[in-house]
Amino acid sequence: MEQNSQSPLSKATNIVWHQSSVDREARTQNRGHGSAILWFTGLSGSGKSTLANAVNVALHKNGYSTYVLDGDNIRHGLCKDLGFSDSDREENIRRIGEVSKLFLDAGIIVLTAFVSPFRIDRDNARALVGENDFIEIYCSANLNICEIRDTKGLYAKARKGDIQDFTGISSPYEEPLSPELNIDTGNIAIDECVDMVINFLINKEIISQISS
Amino acid sequence: MEQNSQSPLSKATNIVWHQSSVDREARTQNRGHGSAILWFTGLSGSGKSTLANAVNVALHKNGYSTYVLDGDNIRHGLCKDLGFSDSDREENIRRIGEVSKLFLDAGIIVLTAFVSPFRIDRDNARALVGENDFIEIYCSANLNICEIRDTKGLYAKARKGDIQDFTGISSPYEEPLSPELNIDTGNIAIDECVDMVINFLINKEIISQISS
Repeated sequence: MEQNSQSPLSKATNIVWHQSSVDREARTQNRGHGSAILWFTGLSGSGKSTLANAVNVALHKNGYSTYVLDGDNIRHGLCKDLGFSDSDREENIRRIGEVSKLFLDAGIIVLTAFVSPFRIDRDNARALVGENDFIEIYCSANLNICEIRDTKGLYAKARKGDIQDFTGISSPYEEPLSPELNIDTGNIAIDECVDMVINFLINKEIISQISS
Repeated sequence: MEQNSQSPLSKATNIVWHQSSVDREARTQNRGHGSAILWFTGLSGSGKSTLANAVNVALHKNGYSTYVLDGDNIRHGLCKDLGFSDSDREENIRRIGEVSKLFLDAGIIVLTAFVSPFRIDRDNARALVGENDFIEIYCSANLNICEIRDTKGLYAKARKGDIQDFTGISSPYEEPLSPELNIDTGNIAIDECVDMVINFLINKEIISQISS
């Protein structure tokens, strides 16, 4: 759009310009597989990151283009200006939704692993991304199990009041009403959890069979 | 990190966890090519988007994983809360840098096409991404040519005062001091501009030869 007919740039651009829309379909064709957003949600310690990363490994090994967005690469980067107030959590999830959408458009299977406790924020992400491409995966290990695990010691700190607004203790977690997958990560072994996700992707024809 | 030795999730996770770091190197190996950020900068109408998209088409046709970040997919999405004040421009470029870094980590060749008028913001993006992965491409069509093109009519509006803080008219553009590439998009035909970028990528061994 930045050319006109008087410049060398634009004169030679006419043809190229019409070919310049490398869209999601073209990328999907290049990659040989579909894309989607796997939105893992659940309490701290429910196994979101563990499961997302295990699924990621399985997909990567089979040549699929994937990417995991989690606290490590988002909270210290794109969202480092945000805290944990309700409005900051909302903005955090909004940005993650927007970035996921870009990766989706790039033809990549995105896995996000965030507590994302509020239903409306997840629903907004779903609406932003589009119903067909948004796969909400509820890691439903219950609070008791998550608190017993507490490998980061966060629940203990939250109980002592050293952490404010901690989901499950001093801030609510709103369970998904109709997630695409509800996986009891408190009681099901990781390999089986991974299989549940992979089988879902196969059934939706986002990927084809994979070798284990 | 979210497992402990008492849960079914964690017990089965030990092995998977150690394999869970699908990193940039692993992705590079999967894709068969390197990645980098091609940061196109220049005045409005200098041909940044046109050139970025033409390079994108050439790379895509040859099977490279690429993605273009530009006003269309950033300003209406991730950065829709930002205006054009100095601080908003700074935050806009910061977020673009952070998102580019994620795509880079995903093993993708990212092409960004933003005016990005301030040297310090581009330098911050370079520092964030890392010197080796940041390729600054100055689209150096001069103001006179850009204003004559003015296909969006923005310069006319800026001259009338209908647009405030318009780069080149009422807001400064700080030329890159030592860009990796300086391409006179005011006088060089698009095909040749594309070749300059492609040849640079080949010389840097980010990609191998491509068929035209």
